[in-house]
Formats: sequence, structure tokens, C-alpha cells
Amino acid sequence: MSKLTHLDATGAANMVDVSEKDVTTRTAIAEGSVVMLPETVALIRQGDAKKGDVLGTARLAGIMASKRTHELIPLCHPLLISKVNVDCVLDDDLPGVRVTAEVKVSSQTGVEMEALTAVSVACLTIYDMVKAADRGMRIENIRLLMKSGGRSGIYEAP
Amino acid sequence: MSKLTHLDATGAANMVDVSEKDVTTRTAIAEGSVVMLPETVALIRQGDAKKGDVLGTARLAGIMASKRTHELIPLCHPLLISKVNVDCVLDDDLPGVRVTAEVKVSSQTGVEMEALTAVSVACLTIYDMVKAADRGMRIENIRLLMKSGGRSGIYEAP
Amino acid sequence: MSKLTHLDATGAANMVDVSEKDVTTRTAIAEGSVVMLPETVALIRQGDAKKGDVLGTARLAGIMASKRTHELIPLCHPLLISKVNVDCVLDDDLPGVRVTAEVKVSSQTGVEMEALTAVSVACLTIYDMVKAADRGMRIENIRLLMKSGGRSGIYEAP
Amino acid sequence: MSKLTHLDATGAANMVDVSEKDVTTRTAIAEGSVVMLPETVALIRQGDAKKGDVLGTARLAGIMASKRTHELIPLCHPLLISKVNVDCVLDDDLPGVRVTAEVKVSSQTGVEMEALTAVSVACLTIYDMVKAADRGMRIENIRLLMKSGGRSGIYEAP
Amino acid sequence: MSKLTHLDATGAANMVDVSEKDVTTRTAIAEGSVVMLPETVALIRQGDAKKGDVLGTARLAGIMASKRTHELIPLCHPLLISKVNVDCVLDDDLPGVRVTAEVKVSSQTGVEMEALTAVSVACLTIYDMVKAADRGMRIENIRLLMKSGGRSGIYEAP
Amino acid sequence: MSKLTHLDATGAANMVDVSEKDVTTRTAIAEGSVVMLPETVALIRQGDAKKGDVLGTARLAGIMASKRTHELIPLCHPLLISKVNVDCVLDDDLPGVRVTAEVKVSSQTGVEMEALTAVSVACLTIYDMVKAADRGMRIENIRLLMKSGGRSGIYEAP
Repeated sequence: MSKLTHLDATGAANMVDVSEKDVTTRTAIAEGSVVMLPETVALIRQGDAKKGDVLGTARLAGIMASKRTHELIPLCHPLLISKVNVDCVLDDDLPGVRVTAEVKVSSQTGVEMEALTAVSVACLTIYDMVKAADRGMRIENIRLLMKSGGRSGIYEAP
Repeated sequence: MSKLTHLDATGAANMVDVSEKDVTTRTAIAEGSVVMLPETVALIRQGDAKKGDVLGTARLAGIMASKRTHELIPLCHPLLISKVNVDCVLDDDLPGVRVTAEVKVSSQTGVEMEALTAVSVACLTIYDMVKAADRGMRIENIRLLMKSGGRSGIYEAP
Repeated sequence: MSKLTHLDATGAANMVDVSEKDVTTRTAIAEGSVVMLPETVALIRQGDAKKGDVLGTARLAGIMASKRTHELIPLCHPLLISKVNVDCVLDDDLPGVRVTAEVKVSSQTGVEMEALTAVSVACLTIYDMVKAADRGMRIENIRLLMKSGGRSGIYEAP
Repeated sequence: MSKLTHLDATGAANMVDVSEKDVTTRTAIAEGSVVMLPETVALIRQGDAKKGDVLGTARLAGIMASKRTHELIPLCHPLLISKVNVDCVLDDDLPGVRVTAEVKVSSQTGVEMEALTAVSVACLTIYDMVKAADRGMRIENIRLLMKSGGRSGIYEAP
Repeated sequence: MSKLTHLDATGAANMVDVSEKDVTTRTAIAEGSVVMLPETVALIRQGDAKKGDVLGTARLAGIMASKRTHELIPLCHPLLISKVNVDCVLDDDLPGVRVTAEVKVSSQTGVEMEALTAVSVACLTIYDMVKAADRGMRIENIRLLMKSGGRSGIYEAP
Repeated sequence: MSKLTHLDATGAANMVDVSEKDVTTRTAIAEGSVVMLPETVALIRQGDAKKGDVLGTARLAGIMASKRTHELIPLCHPLLISKVNVDCVLDDDLPGVRVTAEVKVSSQTGVEMEALTAVSVACLTIYDMVKAADRGMRIENIRLLMKSGGRSGIYEAP
């Protein structure tokens, strides 16, 4: 069975040694959603017609958070991210906002945590900006969609 | 209809003026889950029998992140949090880990974002520590359970 | 003659003791400009017609930086800022962008450095976003416009 | 006409993909000034005779800030800066302090924002340390002096 | 016997609830030393004759670190420090540098960790700046000298 | 005599240019101790029997701090650490806790400051978690044990 790579032989948490891994171009895409009332979607869309600030603010918060992943997640390595892209799209069927983040790096370790952190903080920011209007929102289904470039090849979510 | 308090009259994002609000004791409780394979739950439980590091690491990451909420969420106010409590419990029915965070402050503004940020980062940390064993995990159902102490009285999730 | 309050009797830098000062509501307004080619102003205006991202991004960067003033300026005190407002306006006469920041706090010490830091980082962000189009930009005339609430009364720039 | 590289086709802000650019040695030099009363220059010079703390503190604040540029400027990439040099010189003709910063890196992207951030925060620190003596100071003429090592060759300010 | 206040009934680490404690003026003084070769003391003294940079840099690093104590020590509360004073003195008898830090706050919890963090980071900075000249240095005897203002009264080291 | 590499010809502190140094695999091991009452050692051991939180929390705090060394120590370079390992062991002979940290990087500059910072912050965290039980603790003998990979070859403490 797979090992938990962050625990050493005695079970103590440690930061995995990646110094022997190859430097390759690695990409990860993650997604997540904020589920809200249809009225709240309408409210964001209205604002968006003017200045797009809820979704634009969330996009920037996600980008900035992905650069600080190694400060937040105790055993993540610092990385020189070469690209971060965050998209926030209103979806009437949820109803709510769908957030997608793509992160790219040339490194010895992957960027799935950076993509997932970008999605999480973008979702939290959306929540923060509309919480006065809707207390019952939920952040849902944060997951990895795709990962490429590591030793284990390409992963795509089923 | 409720206003989006973070957008001013022209739709531009801003940090709401809270200087006229009362200083009161405010509490918020949030929850969320990491859904995983039953084998992954077993793996964490095994590790836990030795040193509890996956759940213990996630708990600390959540506590530390809640103190940095105002750095991550662009329009959140800095706060002097007086208490943070994060619990991470294995749940075979999910299957996965349930995370709950309680945050307390004496302030002019509430701590729901601090509680939600603690939950989100604890979930991301659990994900990080077991991702080598389970690529299909999802972070689910992050939401506010309770909030008290503000002008709008007590909120409890239905 | 006025003393340099951050230097002690031996000339060593220190963080001034503010514990005996009164807690009052303090406000500061600062401004600054990015001077650029008329074509660059046009370029931002065009983008603005679509999504406003240059000015919106700068506004958020300024707000977020003002919360971290005490991390950047060695002898500034940490503060519980209660409001930050940053405005970025295109000005064909400069030509360029005028940035204004207003910060408010209830504290024993003022927020002029928080307002000036917000302006500076908003200007740097504008520079960053259009530097590919215009290498000769200058950040100009960053200064305090108004300050109120401290022992020394209201200051207004002449 | 030049493109704004930080805006994608729809006008949304994003962090540019630099993964295809060459790793080269890149240098940037920026400058700026704090303009003040002649008496304030004298005051700093006097302190400097003893311990040099105003200018020494500003120099360190500038160096430390340049390492955090990617945290402050939303779309800047994290970089492994290999050298930062900040100089702060009293100038009776301004009258005030002239600040120069030189930053060097081996990277796929340049360091002009790191040099400009070092200058800005050094200027803010000087302002902070003498503001009790002089409320009318202005931070002036922050600009790029030189940039080398990128695809576009050497830039020198006219 | 005294309880470990940071562990709850099940032994899990948590951030202690201080919301019921009184807001009082609290002070803490801590000290520590960097022990080095006599030649290294001479080297710093020589530099000091010119610009005092080793000790001045250490003093600033200590002040800045004390403001970030709650980011470094997982269960420390964020605080609005009202004063930090760090002194670094050459001592030929050690031989080395003696570092003392005094921190003051008006708060529900004390500042001994802030004073100890200031001392630790000042010592590390001294070490960093002279390590090329002396590999065998040791940081010694970091401890609390005095603490006042809490429920337990004044503590003075024996 | 050895030069203080962080001071330039005029004695001003600066961040050393490492761009001409070779990229090699560099390792550093540092150690330090928290000396306490025998009863305090027993108290931690008891807690450890349940959940190991004092030592586990210190280990994580040390790992996380080592990633932020360049933010704390003014003239340290940012680095892409590839491994951090922190061990905290109870020692009845001290009596107290012995902390060891090993850091690895592939870089143009070494990681002794990262290892020493990990040890210092782990010691401070232990202090914080048991200070309610023992006011007289001391942090002792923080030093470099081993360093390899740089131009100067392998260093081992005598």
C-alpha cells in the first residue's frame, strides 16, 4: 500500500527530501465551487456588470495565496512558480461560482497544493464578499483535476 | 435586498469601515471535510496510533492560518483573536476526516472568515499529507455552523 | 527643534513607546501618482472599458499592503486598521494615474505610514502591470494630504 | 502597440507564464528621493555622525522588502534574488535623501520590481523616522535607471 | 502541579482562550548571548567604529521579529505591541555579544515570547553576519529576566 | 584575517552577491537545548504518552520557520530548501529537550542559518508550551554541528 510520504519511520511529520528528484515542468489544475442562493448569483452578476469586483478580487486573492502555499501548508516546499491562472465563473445551475486554478513550475516537486490553495482562498474570498447577503453558502468539491510532469506521469480526475 | 458590503457605490472593492460598530465578544464555528478512500482513513488511523501526526499537523496548520486570515482575504480586517480551537476527527461514514474550528475575539467585526480559513487550511494540510496514497480526495462542505456576538444576533446553520 | 522620535539618546533606532498615548480615532489620507506616456493611459483606459483590471488590481494591492505596514517599516507599530480605501483615477493631464488612500484606526498611534504604504504599493502595482508598454514611467509626489486624531491635532497639506 | 502582458484576452489579470523564457543573469537599478526641509537633512546628518540609524535602518528595510516583492505586487513571480544593494545618501541640493537599489538574479524574469520596491520601502522608512520633525516631506521620482539581461537587451533611462 | 496550558484535556495542542483575562499593561525583558572568539569581537568592534552595522542590523532584526512572534510560535496570540527595545552590547569577558530585549503591551496576555523571539533573532542575525569569520560561535543562555503585569504578578529571574 | 562578508568597503550592511558561486548540494545540521526542571521534563513526557503535542508542535514550528529564514535574518538569501528535518528528544541528564535540525538545498549559498533558525524557533515553541509550569527555563548551546557542500568543504564542530 502507498506510504504517507510526510511521516518518517517513527511516525513523525517531516519535509520530504526531494533533492534526488528530476527537475521537470510540472502543471496542476484544481477546481472548487461556492454554492449560494440564486439571488446571490444575481447580485454578483449585477456588480460584475459594473466593475467585476467580487470575481476579480477572488481571482487575485487566489493568485497571491498560491505564492504563499509553503507558508500555510507545513510540509510543502517553497517553489518558483512560473505561472498561475485563476478563473471564477458564475454558474446558475449550481447556483454559485465555479473556481479553477492552473499552476505551472519547473521543479523537483509538483504544484497540486499550490493549485488547491489558490482555489480555496479564491472561494473564501467570494464567501467573504457576499456573506452579508447570504449566510448559508457552502464551499464544495475542491479537488485536483489534472497533474502532469512528475515521475508518476499524468493524472486526470475520473 | 442585502447589499454587498465590500463594494462601494461605484462597485469598487473596499475594506468596510467598522469603526462605528460596537466592540463585543464574537464567536464563530465552521466545519468542513476531506472525503477519501476507506483505505486512506485506515492509513491515517494507523499513523495516529503511533504519533497522530496527520491530524495533529492539520490542527496546527489550521490554527496558524486563522491568525493570517487578513493577509489572505483581501478585505478582511486584522483582528486580535483570543482563542482558536481546531478539531480533526476520522469518520468512517464519510469516509474521511471532519474538521471543525472555533474562533473567538473581542472586536468590532466577526470571525467567521477566520474560522472558515482555519478549516480550509486544515483540510488542505490533510490532503497534502496523504495525497501520495489517494489522488481522488475531495474537500467538501466547508460552511459556517454558528456565529454570535454581532449586531445581527446569533446565526445557526439550519 | 523637533526630535527624531525613533532614535534614543545614544542614536540607536528603537520602536517608540506609545503606551501612554490616548486611544483616539485617527485618520490619514495620502496621495501619489504614476506618470506615464499618453499612449499608456489610453491602454489602461481601454482595458478598463473591459474589466478594469489594472486599476482594480492596484487598489487591492494597496489595501493589502497597508495591513502589512508594520512588517515592512521596521519601527511601525502593528495596528487594528478599521478601514482602508484606495482610489486609482486616470488623469490625462499628468498624464498617468492618481492614487489616493484613506486609512482609519482607533489607536494610540496614527496611520500616515499605512496610508503612504497603500499609495506606494498601488503605484508599484500599476507600474508592474504596464511596464511592458512603457519603460520610462515615474512614481511621483507621494505625500500626506491629511491627518487627524492625534495629540498634534489636524494636519492638512498646504 | 505594446500589449499589457498581465491582462489575458478577456482583460482578466493573470500571472504571466515565464516558463519558456531563458534563465539569464538579470540586473536592475532603480532610484528615488525623499525631499525634505534643510533642517531635516541636518537632523539626519547629526544622528548619522553618531550611529547612522536613519539611513542604516532605511537601507535594511529596503533590502528586506525587495525579498518580499512577490507578496506585495500581486502578479510578480517569486525569485531567488542573488544580490541586493541599497544606498541612501544625503543631498543638500534636493534637499533630502537619494536612494538607489541594485538587484541581481539568475532567472527567467527580471528584477525591476524588486529594485523599485526596495527604493519605495527605503523611502517610506526614512519618512517614518523623521516625520515627527517634518510633516511636509514628499517621496519623488521613483524610476528605473537600468535593466539588463532580458530578451529586450539593456535599458538605460534617458 | 502546574498544567501545560496549551494542551487540552485530550492532550491536543490549542490556542488558550484569553478572553476572560484582564487587559493590563504587561512588560517582559529577556536576554541571551552569542559567544565567539576574541578576534571576532574585535572585528565587530572595528566595524562598529565605522558604521555599527553588525549590532545595528541585529537590533532591527530583533525588533521586526518580535512583531511576528505569533506567526512563528504556533499557539501565541497576535498582540498590539506598544514598545520594543533591543540592545546589543560587545562583552570581552564572554567573549561575544550580549542581547537584551524589552517588550511592552496593553493586553490580556503577556509578551515574554515576544521578548525571547526578539533576542533569538537578534542573536541569529549576529551569527549570520560574522559566521564567515568564526564557525564555532554558540548562542547561549536565552532566558526571561523579568515579567510584570499579569495575574501572577512580577517575575524576576533569580 | 577573515572579512565580515556582509559589510561592504564603507562598513554598510548589504546582501552578498552569490551569483558567481557554484550551485551545489549543501547540507547543514544544527542543535540546541531547552534546559528545564526535572518535573517539567516529566510533564512533557506524560503529555507525550498521550499525543506528543509539545515536541510535535515544536518540530513543526521549526520546520515552518526554516522556510522563512530569509524574512527574519535581514541579509539571508531566499532559498528553495529541498528537505528539513527537526528532531526534539527529551533528555533527563540536561534535564530538558535536545533539538536537532538538518536542512538540505541545491544552491549557490549554504543553509546553516536555516538550520539554526529551525532549532531556535523549535526551542522557543517548547518554551512557550511549558512556560506556565516553569519560569526559569533557558535556551542553551545553539550551534552548528556540520556543514557540507560549499567552497570551504566540510565543517564539523569539534
